[in-house]
Amino acid sequence: MSTVVSPPVSPHQVVVIGGGFGGLETVKALRRAPVEVTLIDRNNYHLFQPLTYQVATASLSPDEIAEPLRTIFRRDTSVHVVMGEVTDVDLERRVVRVEPPASDAEPREVAYDTLVVAGGSSYSYFGHEEWRPFAMEVKSLDSALEVRSRILRAFEAAEGEPNQDHRAAWLTYVVVGAGPTGVEMAGQIAELARDTLPGDFRVIDPRFGRVLLVEMADRVLPAFPPRLSSRAAQALERIGVTPRPGHRVVDIDSDGVEIESADGQTQRVAARTVIWAAGVAASPLAGLLADASGAEVDRAGRVTVEPDLTIPGHPSALAIGDMARVRDPYTGKVDPLPGLAPVAMQQGRYAGRLVRDRLAGSPTPSFRYLDKGNLATIGRARAVADVRGLKISGFIAWAIWLVVHLYYLIGFENRLVVLVRWSYNFFTHGRGGRLITGATERRQDLVRSE
Amino acid sequence: MSTVVSPPVSPHQVVVIGGGFGGLETVKALRRAPVEVTLIDRNNYHLFQPLTYQVATASLSPDEIAEPLRTIFRRDTSVHVVMGEVTDVDLERRVVRVEPPASDAEPREVAYDTLVVAGGSSYSYFGHEEWRPFAMEVKSLDSALEVRSRILRAFEAAEGEPNQDHRAAWLTYVVVGAGPTGVEMAGQIAELARDTLPGDFRVIDPRFGRVLLVEMADRVLPAFPPRLSSRAAQALERIGVTPRPGHRVVDIDSDGVEIESADGQTQRVAARTVIWAAGVAASPLAGLLADASGAEVDRAGRVTVEPDLTIPGHPSALAIGDMARVRDPYTGKVDPLPGLAPVAMQQGRYAGRLVRDRLAGSPTPSFRYLDKGNLATIGRARAVADVRGLKISGFIAWAIWLVVHLYYLIGFENRLVVLVRWSYNFFTHGRGGRLITGATERRQDLVRSE
Repeated sequence: MSTVVSPPVSPHQVVVIGGGFGGLETVKALRRAPVEVTLIDRNNYHLFQPLTYQVATASLSPDEIAEPLRTIFRRDTSVHVVMGEVTDVDLERRVVRVEPPASDAEPREVAYDTLVVAGGSSYSYFGHEEWRPFAMEVKSLDSALEVRSRILRAFEAAEGEPNQDHRAAWLTYVVVGAGPTGVEMAGQIAELARDTLPGDFRVIDPRFGRVLLVEMADRVLPAFPPRLSSRAAQALERIGVTPRPGHRVVDIDSDGVEIESADGQTQRVAARTVIWAAGVAASPLAGLLADASGAEVDRAGRVTVEPDLTIPGHPSALAIGDMARVRDPYTGKVDPLPGLAPVAMQQGRYAGRLVRDRLAGSPTPSFRYLDKGNLATIGRARAVADVRGLKISGFIAWAIWLVVHLYYLIGFENRLVVLVRWSYNFFTHGRGGRLITGATERRQDLVRSE
Repeated sequence: MSTVVSPPVSPHQVVVIGGGFGGLETVKALRRAPVEVTLIDRNNYHLFQPLTYQVATASLSPDEIAEPLRTIFRRDTSVHVVMGEVTDVDLERRVVRVEPPASDAEPREVAYDTLVVAGGSSYSYFGHEEWRPFAMEVKSLDSALEVRSRILRAFEAAEGEPNQDHRAAWLTYVVVGAGPTGVEMAGQIAELARDTLPGDFRVIDPRFGRVLLVEMADRVLPAFPPRLSSRAAQALERIGVTPRPGHRVVDIDSDGVEIESADGQTQRVAARTVIWAAGVAASPLAGLLADASGAEVDRAGRVTVEPDLTIPGHPSALAIGDMARVRDPYTGKVDPLPGLAPVAMQQGRYAGRLVRDRLAGSPTPSFRYLDKGNLATIGRARAVADVRGLKISGFIAWAIWLVVHLYYLIGFENRLVVLVRWSYNFFTHGRGGRLITGATERRQDLVRSE
C-alpha cells in the first residue's frame, strides 16, 4: 500500500500524539506560538478520564465528560486536529504514520520538527489477557458504558433468577485494584445498590448486594498517607463495601474470582460482575519510541526520558504523561511520578514551553513536578484529600473534590449539565443514566435474523 | 431446556409486553386498579422515541431521552417490571414465554388473565435486508449512537481524504423516507454541517456537504396537508437539504445509492452515509398473535384487532399501537391509524380502562382515536403543525413542538437537562454530543491484539 506524504510547510511543525490531559495542555501552551500544531488522536474527543467511573455507574452521560477536540481548538487556526491511529514513529526521518478513521483510506505520513507523544496508559492484566472479557476496565467511554450495562444487567438477572446461590452471585460485585478509580467504582456500586435501586425491584433486595474491593497492597489507596487509607477503608465499610487489602487475584472466569491472601490461602468468590482497575500498561507508543532510540522501558512499558522530557539522543521528540518516566537531572535516577492528570498537564505545559524557548533561543530548566495533592471520593459527600501535607477526609474533602473537578471539566455547557445532574442525584439519590445499552440490541438482531 | 413456571396468584394478572408509549400508558392506567401488572420489555428503559433523532445528530445524550421502567413504576408495588425478550405467546394456555437478559438463565413462563401486547414497529427495508448495514435506521438508542458516529466520522474521513471525488462522497448524506423522522434527520444533518461544524475543520468546508432526502410519495411529509408539505420543502431547501420526492431507492451499497424517478430514470448518488427512515414493519409479535388466532395481518405485518382492541376470538388478549390495526365497529373496515405516539398512548389508556371496566362489570364503548394533530420540526426554530384543522408553520409551530415534547418527556431531571442543552444549542449553534464512539474502540482492540 502506498502512502500519502504531506508536503513540508514553512513554520515549525509540532505533532502531538494523544488528546488526553498531556496532549491537550501541550497544544494549549502552543496556541500563540509561531508554530503549526497537528494533534492526532484515535478518538475525536478529549475525555475527562477522572469522571469516567461516573459514566460506568450511571451518574453521568458520556457527552457530559467529553468534548470534541475540534471544538476545543476551533478558534486556533494554527491547530490541526487529525482523527486517526498512529501506528509508527520514525525518529530519523521525523515522520509519524497515521491510519485514518475510514478503513478504506490510505495511511498518511505527517512530518514534524518537534514531536510530543502523549499516548497515555491502560490497565494491565498482569499477563492474564484471558481475564479481560470477564473483568472490564473503566478507562474509555465505550468500556465505561459496557461496565454500566453489566452492572445493571446483573441486578436484572438477579431479579429473574429463582436459584438463591445463582442470585447471590449476580448480586456480588468484585472490583480489582483499590487506587482512586477502584475505590470510587466500589463506592458508587455500593451506593447504587443501597440508595438508588431499593424500591425498584420486587423480588430481590439490592441492599443485600456485596461489593468486594481486592487490593494487593496492605491497604486501600496505597498512594495516600496511611491515615487517609484507613479513613477511606472505614468510609467504604460504612457504605457497604468490603475492602480486601493484602489479597491478589489468581483467577477470573465468568462465574467468579479466586483471590489469594498474603499467607497463600486462596478463596473462591462467586461473582458475575468483575471490574478491573489495577496495574498500568503504558501506550504501545512508549515501546516503539524505546525501540527506535534505545531508551529504557520499565515493567509497565513506560519509556525513560531525559530531564527535559526528550527521548535520549532525539532532542526533537518528547514523551509525556503516563507513558513516560523522567530521569532526575542530578541523581540520574528515574523518577516514578504517579499516573495522574496533574502530572500529564504539567508535563504538557512544559513541552509547550520547551518548544517556545527553543524557537526564541532561550534555555529551559529541567521539568519539575509540583505536587498539588491527591484526591479520591468514596461515594456521596465523602472523600479523602492529601493537599500539600494537609490530610482531610469527609465532607470538606468532598467539597474540594467537587470544585476541582467542575473547574477542570472541559466546556461550559458540560459543567452546567453536570452540576444539574449532580445536584439532582445528591438530593434524590437518583441516577438518570441507568440504561442498559449495547448487548440487548445485538441480541435482538440475533432473534430477528433467525 | 425445561421452563420455570411462576405459580398463579390470586389478583387479576395483567401482562403487558413492551414499555413504549402504548405499554407505559396501559400500566399507568392500571396503577390503582385491583390487579397485578407485569411489564415485560427487552430493554430496561422507556425510550422517548420522537427525540431519538436528536441523539443521532449529537444534540442530546441517550440518558436524556430514556428513563428506566423500574424508576417510573417504583412507587407502584403492584407493578412488576421484567427485563426480557418475549419469544412466544400461548393464547390457549394464557402464558407468555420470556427469555431473561442473562444468556445462561432458563426461559420463564408468565401466566396472565389479561394480556396487552404493545410490541411497536421498526422500519422495513422493503425486502432488501442486505441494505441494512449501509443504511442504518434511527429507532433504538444503540442505532442512534451508531448513526451519530457514522455521520461525524464521515466529516473526519472527508478532512483526511486527498481525492476530491472521494471527499465529496464522504460529504454527501442520503436520508431515505421523508416522514417526520426523515425530515428531522435531514434538517439536523444540514444544520450540523452549516451551523455547528464550520470552523472545526481546516481542509474541508462542511457547508459544502449535501443532504439528499429521498421520498417515494410525490411530496415530503405525505401524512400532512399538501400546503404544509410545500412549506416544509421550502424550509428544508433554505437550510441546505435537497428533497427528492417521487423517487425510490433501487440499490444501496457502501459507496452510494441508486434512485429511480417516477418515470423510470435511474441516477447514482455517490454517498458514504445513508440513513433509513422508511417503511413500517410491525413487531414479530403481531404475526405470532395472528398465527395463533387466525386474525388478519397486513403487508406491514400489523395484526387486525376488534373495535375494543382485542384479538379476534380471544377477548383476554389485546394488541395496541404500531403493531395493530383496528376494525371499525360500524363499517367493519380496517382503520389504518398513523404509527404515532398519541395513537399508542390513547390505546394504552383504553386497554387499562377496559380491564378496569371488566373487573367492575361495566361495559366499555369501542376505542375511538382522538386526533390531536401532527407535528414535525425542520431544524432550528422551524416546524409545521397540523392541529385540528389549523395549519401552522414557522416559529410558532416550533414553539408548540418544543412545549409538547418537553411536556411529554419522561422524568423531571430529563426535562431540566434537555432544556439546558436545547437553550445552549439554540444560542451557540453548538452540540455537546459530537462524540464518535463504538467502532474506534473495537479497532483499537484489533490493533492491540496484533
